[in-house]
Amino acid sequence: MPEFFNLLSPDDARRRFLDHIPPLGEAETVPTESALGRVLAADTAAPQVLPEFRRSSVDGYAVRAPDTFGASESLPAYLRLAGEVLMGRPAEIDIAPGEAALVHTGGMLPDSATAVVMIEHTQTTAEDEIEVRRPVADGENVIQVGEDIQPGDPILPAGHVLRPQDLGGLLAVGIAAIPVARRPRVAIFATGDEVIPPDRRTQPGQVRDVNSATVAALAERAGAIPLRLGILPDDFEVMLAGAQAAIEQHRVDMLVLSAGSSVSVRDRTAEVFDRLGAPGVLVHGVATKPGKPTILAVGGGRPLMGLPGNPVSAFVQFLMLGVPGIYRLMGAQEPRIPALQARLTANVASVAGREDYVPCRLALRDGEWWADPIFFKSNLIFTLVHADGLLKVPLNQAGLEAGEWVEVCPLG
Amino acid sequence: MPEFFNLLSPDDARRRFLDHIPPLGEAETVPTESALGRVLAADTAAPQVLPEFRRSSVDGYAVRAPDTFGASESLPAYLRLAGEVLMGRPAEIDIAPGEAALVHTGGMLPDSATAVVMIEHTQTTAEDEIEVRRPVADGENVIQVGEDIQPGDPILPAGHVLRPQDLGGLLAVGIAAIPVARRPRVAIFATGDEVIPPDRRTQPGQVRDVNSATVAALAERAGAIPLRLGILPDDFEVMLAGAQAAIEQHRVDMLVLSAGSSVSVRDRTAEVFDRLGAPGVLVHGVATKPGKPTILAVGGGRPLMGLPGNPVSAFVQFLMLGVPGIYRLMGAQEPRIPALQARLTANVASVAGREDYVPCRLALRDGEWWADPIFFKSNLIFTLVHADGLLKVPLNQAGLEAGEWVEVCPLG
Repeated sequence: MPEFFNLLSPDDARRRFLDHIPPLGEAETVPTESALGRVLAADTAAPQVLPEFRRSSVDGYAVRAPDTFGASESLPAYLRLAGEVLMGRPAEIDIAPGEAALVHTGGMLPDSATAVVMIEHTQTTAEDEIEVRRPVADGENVIQVGEDIQPGDPILPAGHVLRPQDLGGLLAVGIAAIPVARRPRVAIFATGDEVIPPDRRTQPGQVRDVNSATVAALAERAGAIPLRLGILPDDFEVMLAGAQAAIEQHRVDMLVLSAGSSVSVRDRTAEVFDRLGAPGVLVHGVATKPGKPTILAVGGGRPLMGLPGNPVSAFVQFLMLGVPGIYRLMGAQEPRIPALQARLTANVASVAGREDYVPCRLALRDGEWWADPIFFKSNLIFTLVHADGLLKVPLNQAGLEAGEWVEVCPLG
Repeated sequence: MPEFFNLLSPDDARRRFLDHIPPLGEAETVPTESALGRVLAADTAAPQVLPEFRRSSVDGYAVRAPDTFGASESLPAYLRLAGEVLMGRPAEIDIAPGEAALVHTGGMLPDSATAVVMIEHTQTTAEDEIEVRRPVADGENVIQVGEDIQPGDPILPAGHVLRPQDLGGLLAVGIAAIPVARRPRVAIFATGDEVIPPDRRTQPGQVRDVNSATVAALAERAGAIPLRLGILPDDFEVMLAGAQAAIEQHRVDMLVLSAGSSVSVRDRTAEVFDRLGAPGVLVHGVATKPGKPTILAVGGGRPLMGLPGNPVSAFVQFLMLGVPGIYRLMGAQEPRIPALQARLTANVASVAGREDYVPCRLALRDGEWWADPIFFKSNLIFTLVHADGLLKVPLNQAGLEAGEWVEVCPLG
């Protein structure tokens, strides 16, 4: 009679789910300058060398280095000023032995120059003469051709999520448009006879839908296009019809049902998922808290996710399993820096064989992060609002002690 | 003859800059569900209690707790089934002593019930009778009225940057629209005769503009609307006219000039800023690497920022000073979790009296983050592309040793 869960560990559940999700494999080409947060759809390599010419890294004088050897404050070297290298122009000046050319930071070195003397170490002595008070070695204050990147060097691999600096690197070598993964369309339904839209007044027994908004926000952050499709009643036929219509009308790539809180609604969710194509339900229950009754399925090539109705459970499970599902659809590498290491301010109880995610506050003390666990019930959304992160109690531990190092997923 | 910097420490520079930036003080009301990443313009408090009714946290039977006292596997308590509480409906059933009502997770408790027995600890013995095999205490498996939030409780303060879970909290208490700070409009110009648009082919001596894209991406991430307004030649009158026209035509709230690499261009930037209104240039040079020649100004109530032309310097300085400027315009609190603590894999040389930001790779070893510094020149954009973060060498240290803990700003 009670529900029977065949509980998988979070890692196993995640692997089983992700292994069944086929990447969309669809790319679109966008201007590089508009590609922030998009996922590269192909490996990129440098089409050219950078810098393309020898550049001065300082304001100063381009010289033949040997002409400065032995130069000092008391015995400067005197060089004839052959001219100025203008910015953005080829350095057409030739420097004969004993000559120098004024060059600005980023300017091109004349062919015959081998180094740059910083302007601070020189003095103008006549209109066409400078004295140099310090020697420079060959190559000093010069950025060599190819020092930044060489033609054919890999820049970023397919699956990389583009950051501000990546756009700069691509543009620097003239890659002004790039192929990126199409953004997956994630349909989100709330279900449950007690759930009403958040802009309505509640009647006794009713609660507002918060999961559609939190899941949509997490999906958007992950790079997807969220589609909030409303609230379905606790009725198998209506739920199935709603899911099917969404898939057809909205070209849905992923479907999420925030599945109400009672067992009956959750079971109906699994039945609906099994009707949306093979392989159907893959995971019915995860050994985790909050979020044990999570349902993971794939149907018709689409990931399908049944979230518990409790707002904390729904949030944590979508963050831990739904977001990786979106990355998988886009063929994206997950972020390299997922977690913070912090020390616990208090003991946290758990149960061996279950992975817990506990909302916590974070504080920096003497250069170390401390995580202060928040007592929580998965029904209470404000425990998340007051949290800076989720601390993880690993599967095989029956709790953690104050002072221990823990992994914290920041809720930024 | 050489440039004279009156170098301020990064903290002093930042404080002087931010203290002169007046917050825009303009709010607009947006639907809460569309407010991800926006900045709250007013303190919010709960307009109502949550939950609004006593809810069951499990599937089970609502009972009067004393009726279950002493119940056990061998000596169960027998209760008459008075009915079922439907989801989304008031609990109209009254439970007399010796009675129970079926209730689902999230359902409303009948007035006379004081606890819920989990369905796993019961058995149906007749159509209208159950046996209870474990006692429950008053309040067990019940979420009390107001356990999540009380009317008038503060939710989030003005200046808070809204996260996914915050939208959920606001919607849970029926706040479906909220006042948020207007997004500042940040105008970005590149300057320098050597700089060309990134989609053009370079001629000898020319380089592509990358700073406009990286600064725009950082500004967008921070919540601003970036306006990339192109490239200005190294000519005072043209630069001034360009800046003035932008401010008038585009209702600019902040102006950034990526100011070329040579001293002459940087000095012209300062002259332009001094013509855009009082107080003018506040900081001309920061004791930091990369990015020493950064110019910070405020004119006509607008922050004005002159960035070095080197891509690494421009990126780091906009991240460290420009982004806080945007937050200030929005009246936003800076993120609570700015830095990661990591240990150094190698010695890093610096100079006392200068704060360094060194690009680094991050790796997790035995639960600790390690930062692997990348040798860098501020001219080389690909040092940032290959970096996971920027590690900080504090102002008063002449370097750091391998194994030391350092603060790392992740470049996510």
